[in-house]
Amino acid sequence: MTNGANAVINSLVESGVQVCFGNPGTSEMHFVAALDAVPQMRAVLCLFEGVVTGAADGYARVADRPAATLLHLGPGMANGLANLHNARRAHTPVVNIVGDHATHHHRYDAPLESDIATLGSWLQGWTRTATSTETVGQDVVDAVAASTDGAGQIATVILPADISWTSGGTVGTAVPPVPRVVPDGQVIAEVADVLTSGAKTVILIGADATRVDGLLAVSRIANATGATVLVETFPAALDRGAGVPGFDRLGYLAEAAQAQLEGTEHLVLIGTRSPVSFFAYPDKASDLVPEGAQVHTLVDIRDDVLGAVTALAGKVAAEHTATVQDRVEVDVPTGDLTLANWVQVVGAVLPENTIISDEANTSGLMLPAATAGAPRHRVLTLTGGAIGQGLPVAVGAAIAAPDRPVLALQSDGSALYTISALWTMARENLNVTTVLLNNSAYAILRMELQRVGAQSGGEKANSLLDLSRPDMDFVAISQGFGVPAVRVTTAEALATELTRAFAEEGPHLIEAMIPPLL
Amino acid sequence: MTNGANAVINSLVESGVQVCFGNPGTSEMHFVAALDAVPQMRAVLCLFEGVVTGAADGYARVADRPAATLLHLGPGMANGLANLHNARRAHTPVVNIVGDHATHHHRYDAPLESDIATLGSWLQGWTRTATSTETVGQDVVDAVAASTDGAGQIATVILPADISWTSGGTVGTAVPPVPRVVPDGQVIAEVADVLTSGAKTVILIGADATRVDGLLAVSRIANATGATVLVETFPAALDRGAGVPGFDRLGYLAEAAQAQLEGTEHLVLIGTRSPVSFFAYPDKASDLVPEGAQVHTLVDIRDDVLGAVTALAGKVAAEHTATVQDRVEVDVPTGDLTLANWVQVVGAVLPENTIISDEANTSGLMLPAATAGAPRHRVLTLTGGAIGQGLPVAVGAAIAAPDRPVLALQSDGSALYTISALWTMARENLNVTTVLLNNSAYAILRMELQRVGAQSGGEKANSLLDLSRPDMDFVAISQGFGVPAVRVTTAEALATELTRAFAEEGPHLIEAMIPPLL
Repeated sequence: MTNGANAVINSLVESGVQVCFGNPGTSEMHFVAALDAVPQMRAVLCLFEGVVTGAADGYARVADRPAATLLHLGPGMANGLANLHNARRAHTPVVNIVGDHATHHHRYDAPLESDIATLGSWLQGWTRTATSTETVGQDVVDAVAASTDGAGQIATVILPADISWTSGGTVGTAVPPVPRVVPDGQVIAEVADVLTSGAKTVILIGADATRVDGLLAVSRIANATGATVLVETFPAALDRGAGVPGFDRLGYLAEAAQAQLEGTEHLVLIGTRSPVSFFAYPDKASDLVPEGAQVHTLVDIRDDVLGAVTALAGKVAAEHTATVQDRVEVDVPTGDLTLANWVQVVGAVLPENTIISDEANTSGLMLPAATAGAPRHRVLTLTGGAIGQGLPVAVGAAIAAPDRPVLALQSDGSALYTISALWTMARENLNVTTVLLNNSAYAILRMELQRVGAQSGGEKANSLLDLSRPDMDFVAISQGFGVPAVRVTTAEALATELTRAFAEEGPHLIEAMIPPLL
Repeated sequence: MTNGANAVINSLVESGVQVCFGNPGTSEMHFVAALDAVPQMRAVLCLFEGVVTGAADGYARVADRPAATLLHLGPGMANGLANLHNARRAHTPVVNIVGDHATHHHRYDAPLESDIATLGSWLQGWTRTATSTETVGQDVVDAVAASTDGAGQIATVILPADISWTSGGTVGTAVPPVPRVVPDGQVIAEVADVLTSGAKTVILIGADATRVDGLLAVSRIANATGATVLVETFPAALDRGAGVPGFDRLGYLAEAAQAQLEGTEHLVLIGTRSPVSFFAYPDKASDLVPEGAQVHTLVDIRDDVLGAVTALAGKVAAEHTATVQDRVEVDVPTGDLTLANWVQVVGAVLPENTIISDEANTSGLMLPAATAGAPRHRVLTLTGGAIGQGLPVAVGAAIAAPDRPVLALQSDGSALYTISALWTMARENLNVTTVLLNNSAYAILRMELQRVGAQSGGEKANSLLDLSRPDMDFVAISQGFGVPAVRVTTAEALATELTRAFAEEGPHLIEAMIPPLL
């Protein structure tokens, strides 16, 4: 007879989950022991839970199905929360299996005891504590279904050790997916009326509208109606490059976003929320909708975004085609690396179908323009603002798409949150090329220190935003984790090393020495 | 007029908080800007929040006063939770200042928005959200008082950015400390009766009873009554070595603890809880109190443990002195490193007054015996079982006691959780010597896989407990963070490098290649 752990793994597999990113402990040992009996489940060891959860996020953004995580009690889940927060903001389906003490052990309040469900509640997703070996298989099937409900959310099963080790587990019964709702004709007609009214209209898109099929429909709508299209500031997955309609993203800085939206009379939301400032600042607006503009929601993020945009295109743009980006070949720039030329190098050498995990932060401000005419690629962005996402997301993306190159554009400060992701890249021989943008500073905070109006310039204040003293050597760190690495200081060297890294199997890291924004 | 951030920092200083470990973001920029105006506050940058919170824990275990942390919204606090969990289990006072969005910004649910108070509640400490600039100074004073209430706990102030940046802050009014309760004479008399009854009695000690004054009193009691003394398995701070009474710790493995406690008729608890197994195992007891033994609590952890043990010694051992450990000089062993000889090297070369941050895990099983006769030292242990504590605690200890050597005994798997602590050691030029015990495995999990009775031996299961493929190079990683490092494979080389590291200023890392336990 199968034990609970075996039923959990088989229920995951039967629900379509094929990969488990894990960092197990004692309470997960029966799960670990049961893995070899289920060849359909791939287990990927990560050396910190923030890598586990970020990898699950990156995997699902590419594979369009959830991965499982395996986490060790409350502290293990706590370590994974920041990247689960990012996954929540990306509406990524993730299924957490969090091992817990045996049921009878809770009352002793052993050192690792804590209220795991509280951590689950922080994620505003779905959480259930397994209560018996007989029902845990169903708990897992329900969790997978919950994770993919609507646009996707975090689903957590708390799995007491005795439920894992007891015999009598059975695979849960499949839960039919809930069909996503398409807006009714009335909503579509109202938005169509707005778009064809002649008033200045901006369409802001997110969710499936930022993938190629959605972008093609949106482009047709824009061509038919003259509306301006903007992509939300931090899309979970944005397809772009040659052959794909190309739209600007709404700016991260409120001032930039306000300039883009100035004069808008109607703002149509398609799979995204009304735009707000990332942070509040003294005497600056939080709500970025221009005064007097009307906001119209075509479709909520949780509903059928692609169906809605397709229906709208059918209504207002039946005779119109989409405009796609031409391929623009650019020359490799030369000279010392700058904020402007490193992104041009990326644009010049990017292979077709690359997945970019973008945590370049301030160093990447000029990336979108420089890669607009590159071969078609997908960009995964930092959706929830919790840094340390980029390298783990790259791990997950590479496991989801072993045949596609993955390019992690990673700023130095953020990289350190989850730096051991490099080791998993090495162990799994993943085709991830990391460009580590070393500017020896929390450059974004230097900018923010000025923007919030704080008095600055003091020695202590500046030392908290400075990553020199000592300078870090990311080549050494990367090699220490088993990933071959090289440092470059010129654009031509970056191009050479990027080209080499894309051509060779397995992970590489290129430390690019660039000046800080400020 | 001073702003809220300034009032927060001055209120910390007025309450006796002199160090702030931080990893700030935009919402903390006014706090950062205000630091230079308050020279009494030292600000220490850590590159990940788990380092911030672990450092605050280590600082307070040595300084006997809380440090502040500076954390960035919910995800920043989430990243710090695991080491706050350890601090909670150590009853360490910690004051968290968690920056949040401006009050008026919450309703926009910006990307970094989350319910920070929920994370505070997980820690079972004290949490308050500041509601005005006028009162935030008092919130901070109250938080410091709460952190030191009883045995110590985690106190968290959630600080909205607008409360920081608005003018009108004032320093809070001092809160007189609540005196810790000494048990009444009746309780002391009852325990005295048990101890003098002739029945087989074990005294289990924790909290202040594991520091030198408490240990001296306990030793007198043991000498007078014949009771056996054991130290709790994971004390927050244990003084030991020459000149200090030396007692065994209760074993981590339930089997070992049960053997130590076998035949006990009375178990007297002094500043600790009744012993329980760290994890549950099939068909093994969770409660480690022997069948039929009576448990007596002399004093709760939250009350005046040193006062209680001193009163008890006065009652039962007025004529008795303590037995202290002799200094035992040992020779440096030779040959390839083993689990037995590396700890002998530590015992042979340990300088007087060293603070040991012990996260050696399975590699350190023989450490206590090997260092028993070493010069007096203090050991800080992994109180809550959440790995990744050792290096951050060493950072905090070194800042609390700049004149004492700090020795971090760190296992490889656990080190990676908070490896960037090395950079803070380098920046602050801390006298921390890290012995990185590299056995290329989660060795404790190999043991636990067997202990839980899980079927093992499968390739996938074993790969999840294996840290080779690729092997990590901690010398490279350490150098990458700016800490000089060397690898050793023999006992004599370890002795040479340890001696050199203790003699030189600043941080060092010694990667000791040792065999795994299993």
